[in-house]
Amino acid sequence: MDINYRNSFKIFGAIMLVMSLAMMLPLIVAVIYGESDCIIAFAQVIVPSAIIGLMLMKLIKSKKKALKMRDGAFIVSVTWILFSLIGSIPFMLTESIPNFADAFFETASGFTTTGSTVVSDIESLPKAVLFWRALTHWLGGMGILIFTIALLPALGMDGQQVASAEMPGPTLSKITPKLSDTARYLYILYILMTLAETVLLMFGGMSLFDALCHSFSSLGTGGFSNYNNSIMHFQSGYIEVVLALFMFLAGMNFNLFFIFFRNGISAFIKDGEWKLYVGIVACCTLIVAIPLYVTGIYGLGDALRHSFFQNVTVITTTGFASADYMLWPVFCQSILFLLFFVGGSTSSTSGGIKVLRILVFAKMVKRSLVLRLHPNAVVPIKVNDRQVSRDTVSHMSGFLFLYIGVGVLCTFIISFDGFDAMTNISAAFSCLGNIGLGFNEVGPSGNFGIFSDFSKIVMAFTMIAGRLELFTLLVLFTKRFWRPFR
Amino acid sequence: MDINYRNSFKIFGAIMLVMSLAMMLPLIVAVIYGESDCIIAFAQVIVPSAIIGLMLMKLIKSKKKALKMRDGAFIVSVTWILFSLIGSIPFMLTESIPNFADAFFETASGFTTTGSTVVSDIESLPKAVLFWRALTHWLGGMGILIFTIALLPALGMDGQQVASAEMPGPTLSKITPKLSDTARYLYILYILMTLAETVLLMFGGMSLFDALCHSFSSLGTGGFSNYNNSIMHFQSGYIEVVLALFMFLAGMNFNLFFIFFRNGISAFIKDGEWKLYVGIVACCTLIVAIPLYVTGIYGLGDALRHSFFQNVTVITTTGFASADYMLWPVFCQSILFLLFFVGGSTSSTSGGIKVLRILVFAKMVKRSLVLRLHPNAVVPIKVNDRQVSRDTVSHMSGFLFLYIGVGVLCTFIISFDGFDAMTNISAAFSCLGNIGLGFNEVGPSGNFGIFSDFSKIVMAFTMIAGRLELFTLLVLFTKRFWRPFR
Repeated sequence: MDINYRNSFKIFGAIMLVMSLAMMLPLIVAVIYGESDCIIAFAQVIVPSAIIGLMLMKLIKSKKKALKMRDGAFIVSVTWILFSLIGSIPFMLTESIPNFADAFFETASGFTTTGSTVVSDIESLPKAVLFWRALTHWLGGMGILIFTIALLPALGMDGQQVASAEMPGPTLSKITPKLSDTARYLYILYILMTLAETVLLMFGGMSLFDALCHSFSSLGTGGFSNYNNSIMHFQSGYIEVVLALFMFLAGMNFNLFFIFFRNGISAFIKDGEWKLYVGIVACCTLIVAIPLYVTGIYGLGDALRHSFFQNVTVITTTGFASADYMLWPVFCQSILFLLFFVGGSTSSTSGGIKVLRILVFAKMVKRSLVLRLHPNAVVPIKVNDRQVSRDTVSHMSGFLFLYIGVGVLCTFIISFDGFDAMTNISAAFSCLGNIGLGFNEVGPSGNFGIFSDFSKIVMAFTMIAGRLELFTLLVLFTKRFWRPFR
Repeated sequence: MDINYRNSFKIFGAIMLVMSLAMMLPLIVAVIYGESDCIIAFAQVIVPSAIIGLMLMKLIKSKKKALKMRDGAFIVSVTWILFSLIGSIPFMLTESIPNFADAFFETASGFTTTGSTVVSDIESLPKAVLFWRALTHWLGGMGILIFTIALLPALGMDGQQVASAEMPGPTLSKITPKLSDTARYLYILYILMTLAETVLLMFGGMSLFDALCHSFSSLGTGGFSNYNNSIMHFQSGYIEVVLALFMFLAGMNFNLFFIFFRNGISAFIKDGEWKLYVGIVACCTLIVAIPLYVTGIYGLGDALRHSFFQNVTVITTTGFASADYMLWPVFCQSILFLLFFVGGSTSSTSGGIKVLRILVFAKMVKRSLVLRLHPNAVVPIKVNDRQVSRDTVSHMSGFLFLYIGVGVLCTFIISFDGFDAMTNISAAFSCLGNIGLGFNEVGPSGNFGIFSDFSKIVMAFTMIAGRLELFTLLVLFTKRFWRPFR
């Protein structure tokens, strides 16, 4: 049984159309700022990709057959690679990032909301390119495909398999009966939050342009900034607090916002993942702030603010820098490094292992301790008073093992470039968790341009694998995927 | 229901007697080398501990009640702490290691077969102390308690719960119907291997004393050496190969040797864990040797030998050094660091996560990939053609999460001493996995004396927790352990 190539390519067509529509925005920016090179560059991508997209959509007859899991995995994986390829063309055409490996890395880093950059002088880039860079975060954050799912019914297809391949956590379909409605509501919420943040950032003295770009970047939990010094550029406590709060929101399960509108505050209080998320942020903020204050690096207020900002930016996998934490005590760095392995909530725009899984793992440890004493006890694992099925638990464990395995493999490959171990480990897990910051050479004052082209491409694929929670991309590399009935 | 304190203390008595018998050996060494200080020091420990031990054994009436899991965990945990405390007294009395935290660390490091040392000038220690140091490895390797189990029936008790608390892997009882027979057979095999290695090392020019100490250390997968430069002192390829081969044997499941004597070579070939163990060692030896040769650090033979030695010493969690790998390419260091998280086989003298668990984790990843495509498939996890129960799989996952958790916690605590992140991470996981070597400050040319007393005591407990595969020690810190019926 073959993959449903017809429907797949029809969807790829829709996606290319979405892509060219999205590129209209940086084109407008280019027109406003009179960046003629950029106008030509973006037009050179928009026109052919719109034409090809429309042709694929119109000329291919879709099969009536429902899309299977395999189709979903295939469509989503190819889409993310395709997007990173097409999205990198403007970087190359404008000669902002002339080298292919660099441009591919930067675009994958954008769409996957990683936010690692290879550009050493960001401020020299044209406005339109900066805008496109930030926009990739915004699009990738909510999932380019969810955008497309809203269109899928129009193509005569059901988007369930596509959605579950892209967001393998708790399914979206819980909130509204129709998946396309959910996708639409999510985007409305997302747009409203973006507008609110933009306005708030402008109050802090940001230009409209910077405010928009940084809103895209923080709500997508990306991490690209328009400045070489990231958020340190602004030297504004207000801006840091606004950004940190919106990153914090973006790291929550978006479904909770809906339940909140329906049921009030109990939506949050009853959610085990949310409580753990808030608890981790609060605890880590405190235990990082204390040494920062005690050792005299900052006053109390600054210590709390920088600690909150950096903890939030790492746990939500955004990766802004409000301070060079490589200069902080090692203990503080260790806490931040630990959060590399946590990540935000499920159904948020963040990456990483996700708080829900950490919660389940903690409960598994507790169960094992009980079973050590009472080997015949039956101890179900419950989250929000509902039992988590053994299959789900086993799948989550499998996810963690694969996560570690992929991170280790990436570490090995990039270690050939000869940087120190901490640089490699943090870079690999930063890409895998879509964080964007690392330690040592890839700390707040470094960038990923130091790696070889080969390493950059490996890291770009690591980001995509991480964004799709591994299985979606990696099943494509199994024999069984291509020969399901042998 | 209380813990069976009567039987527990009767066993502690037996253990103290064993301890004083064991200390007769360094006493003899002290007599031979005329180290009068050491004669007095060891006698000062032997006499009271023999008297107290005998009194506990004779005066306490044992309860007929069978020992429970809780009793097993209690007895084993207390024993290991007690042993590390009593064993540290000679170090302090001889003023070899005058400070308590240092002496406790060194003894725990010995019994748990970690092999991390706080002594910077090892060669200045008296012979009797060096011998005791090495002997702790030998005793700890096979498990002090298995020694005791051979005595338990004489005390009118069954040792099953004690054995399973100390060796939570596949139970020993498979080989012979009676546990005490198994323990006796294991010790005979262990003694024969020790003698064989001693003879082979003496052929390489080692003195009888050095050969015995290094045999204890390698077969216990400990890592203490009598020289500051560890194995680099001997500058002998022959000695390195002999040590590496015996470490390699000590990292195998000892049960396989029995099956080998009964069924021949198929014992190994049919064992999934053994195949993976051999495969990992072979692969890692090759991929580490190639960069060592290509970059011109060593000739081909030396590259292979050093690579084999260092890979084996890390995977078996021994921790000898035949070369300063901090000077090797980062890629090679990364492979060694990865093996920090593997460890030897189950029912071997080695520590770490163990190859069997890694095998199961790999199969869980494979299952998750299959389930991603076929959500309703039933995919059992099999090792050696036998299905591993879901409870066992879940327990293994729980073990890994706890392992990571304890390692991270230890990393945090010791990071207050202010060393770099790689030093802290590698030191913590080195203690937890009972390896003994680390990176940067605790690499082959460093030692653990740099840490604060508090960190040393934390690391000593981490070693004991790791040696007992976490749950045995950590259940003592749960409420349920002390109040099972509330």
